[in-house]
Amino acid sequence: MKRGVSTEQLNWEQYQKDFAALAEIGQNNTGGVDRLAYTEADQQAHGLLAKMAEEAGFEVKWDGAGNLWITRRGTDDGNEKMPPLILGSHMDSVPDGGKYDGLLGVMTAFHAMRLLDGAPQRRTVTLIVFRCEESSRFNCATIGSKLLAEQLNGEKLKSCVDKDGISAYDAIRELGGNPDNLFQERKYIKNAFGFIEMHIEQGPVLQERNTDIGIVGHIAAPYRLKITVEGTAAHSGACPMGSRNDALTGAAEVILAVENLGRQYSSQRIVATVGKCDVINEAINIVPGHVELFVDIRGIDKEIMSEVVGKLHEELERIAAERKLRIEPAILSQETPVRLDDDMAELLVEQCLPNRLTFLHMVSGAGHDTMYMAGLTRATMFFVPCEKGISHNKKEAVSDEAIQNGLKLMYSVLLRICNLDPDVEKEKEEMERRFMEAM
Amino acid sequence: MKRGVSTEQLNWEQYQKDFAALAEIGQNNTGGVDRLAYTEADQQAHGLLAKMAEEAGFEVKWDGAGNLWITRRGTDDGNEKMPPLILGSHMDSVPDGGKYDGLLGVMTAFHAMRLLDGAPQRRTVTLIVFRCEESSRFNCATIGSKLLAEQLNGEKLKSCVDKDGISAYDAIRELGGNPDNLFQERKYIKNAFGFIEMHIEQGPVLQERNTDIGIVGHIAAPYRLKITVEGTAAHSGACPMGSRNDALTGAAEVILAVENLGRQYSSQRIVATVGKCDVINEAINIVPGHVELFVDIRGIDKEIMSEVVGKLHEELERIAAERKLRIEPAILSQETPVRLDDDMAELLVEQCLPNRLTFLHMVSGAGHDTMYMAGLTRATMFFVPCEKGISHNKKEAVSDEAIQNGLKLMYSVLLRICNLDPDVEKEKEEMERRFMEAM
Repeated sequence: MKRGVSTEQLNWEQYQKDFAALAEIGQNNTGGVDRLAYTEADQQAHGLLAKMAEEAGFEVKWDGAGNLWITRRGTDDGNEKMPPLILGSHMDSVPDGGKYDGLLGVMTAFHAMRLLDGAPQRRTVTLIVFRCEESSRFNCATIGSKLLAEQLNGEKLKSCVDKDGISAYDAIRELGGNPDNLFQERKYIKNAFGFIEMHIEQGPVLQERNTDIGIVGHIAAPYRLKITVEGTAAHSGACPMGSRNDALTGAAEVILAVENLGRQYSSQRIVATVGKCDVINEAINIVPGHVELFVDIRGIDKEIMSEVVGKLHEELERIAAERKLRIEPAILSQETPVRLDDDMAELLVEQCLPNRLTFLHMVSGAGHDTMYMAGLTRATMFFVPCEKGISHNKKEAVSDEAIQNGLKLMYSVLLRICNLDPDVEKEKEEMERRFMEAM
Repeated sequence: MKRGVSTEQLNWEQYQKDFAALAEIGQNNTGGVDRLAYTEADQQAHGLLAKMAEEAGFEVKWDGAGNLWITRRGTDDGNEKMPPLILGSHMDSVPDGGKYDGLLGVMTAFHAMRLLDGAPQRRTVTLIVFRCEESSRFNCATIGSKLLAEQLNGEKLKSCVDKDGISAYDAIRELGGNPDNLFQERKYIKNAFGFIEMHIEQGPVLQERNTDIGIVGHIAAPYRLKITVEGTAAHSGACPMGSRNDALTGAAEVILAVENLGRQYSSQRIVATVGKCDVINEAINIVPGHVELFVDIRGIDKEIMSEVVGKLHEELERIAAERKLRIEPAILSQETPVRLDDDMAELLVEQCLPNRLTFLHMVSGAGHDTMYMAGLTRATMFFVPCEKGISHNKKEAVSDEAIQNGLKLMYSVLLRICNLDPDVEKEKEEMERRFMEAM
């Protein structure tokens, strides 16, 4: 496609109408969205989207995890050389969340599939609406994609329990699912051409740099620790400055050390945050004796991560020694960063150009279902900007232009991949290789 | 008294027995003391002490605030030139508090009065057991002494309400008291010779410096403020270090600035503490957008206090500007430091010497009923060391030796003051003045 997709081609009114119909499911009276995984609101959204898909003539099914599969068959369906393309995102929300988050990615993929009407489509394309991407309900994120990728099973899901004591296992069973029966679906993804997810950035980079599209090369993994700072509680009036072992001033130094490491390694894609600071038995007239800090460090390179964590430990020891405190770090979780597929990213770049979309190669600091699809097939992901990077919040906002840009790119890349002939492509590559060798 | 009091003179077994009987009232099953003001346990302690006082032949009454007055008449009772000496402390505790706190001061004063048996006693001595020194129940401290000093009245007490909605006013009325009827008692204190309170230090200085007695020259006043730090909440993975307005890292700088000011001014008797740090909507994966800090600054000089507060404001502005945060300080309370009486302190010093008690002149960082007595009469106060400075906690501990030292000093000073002849003293002073002039 040399000229790109025009806004007129987007069937924008239908997109808006359908998006609005889905977005209002679970909306509370303060304008936030409560569509937690496997709840009635989530079910309702799945039902409505399935109905829209059937109306569009697509095939619809739910897998053992409750993920919704929407398939538009291509003319070469069944041809092993033309395996299907898979798209995906999620529709569940955090409590009092925003309208866009996962839903925008689902709706963009679904609408791009509808836009193929009348266009050539050799390859089959399947949209997977993953279940329970958010950790809010069961303290466990990306359940649907993890089950598909065998990073989770029914047994483990029994211990993921919501505040009412309902396990994720029971929630899936109640819907008629079976989290341990995903063999066929796993095989389908493993044999696919590749996987694409669109999402809002959830960070401020694209807007700050006035860029249309973020092409995600890595998904950073969080290393989380709890740091306990123990000093000696004392009377704020009666204990002189020189006699104190103040756990909170020690914790303040730790907070700044974490920030400083993040800043020092920011060119190496490290972000480091203290998100929680709890003073135990706090009172205005007590010198704090016990503070708990919760730290989240993310990066895309395991070695750099280890270096940062090592330096943090050195800082903790220094602060503990200087202030005569006990500072104990405890690992809460340690995940592995995921590198996404370069060839798939290149196909996105190729379609940005005719559409005159500016783009940046970037890292996703947040986790996504794409992380688990990347273990099964060649996966890529792209971002569109959201207002001030605000997400997981009812203030979440995305401009029409940003949505249209995402839709143009999704439709363009769909059209391109669905009609990408492996033989023709190989021939072209061979010609290019010979050309390079001859130079 | 040239030779001091011997331990044999202290009637130590009786002291221990009676202290234990009072200390166990309100004891909970974890070893802490729950004897909150005006509760049944507090009443029971008042009743038992009154019984002990009657057994000792002392006069007993409760005033309109519920303060217990125990009087031992001297042989010059009624002689205007020999006004009474007043002692005082409290018996109410914080929740799950320690055994000593106020009770040690009450018991030491009471027992010193008993030790006068058989000794000369011209001046009358009265012990006031103040009510509700602790702020725990009604969020209002030193109610009994404030009412006596007209720093509080019945009307204001109606708005001091406990967690069950009972006001301090109603609690006093229920006991048959009338917080607005204290004219006679106020007059009695105003006409007194002076006031002495003994208390545990509640800080580590005496133990650290291996000193027996702390003679309190000033009671520091707290200046309390709430500092609100506002930044922008963001996703801990998706928001790069350079794009953040992290309220918690800003708050960490404020915490260290408060500590730094305390250290810088510590030779000028300033202590500065951040006792509470609350991250609003905290989560491990959110860059904090809103933090509230609660600061307690104490000093003995109003001007130095203003200087410290002024410098803190400068620091807040600097941090806000550097980090692009909104930092708003709000005053919660601002009390006036109290200077105690030098002549009364000198009488304590005079009695430390023959008793071979080492002493330090010091500041009380904690508030005490003495603050309000100082507005009515010449007041002084002394401390005995407590283990590691721990107080308001069931781990509170005081050695027998420390208690005996306090008792020796209290008894010695009682004996001295009760027999101090104003005419003889004036003559001595006049002689000294002439002697100095002649030199």
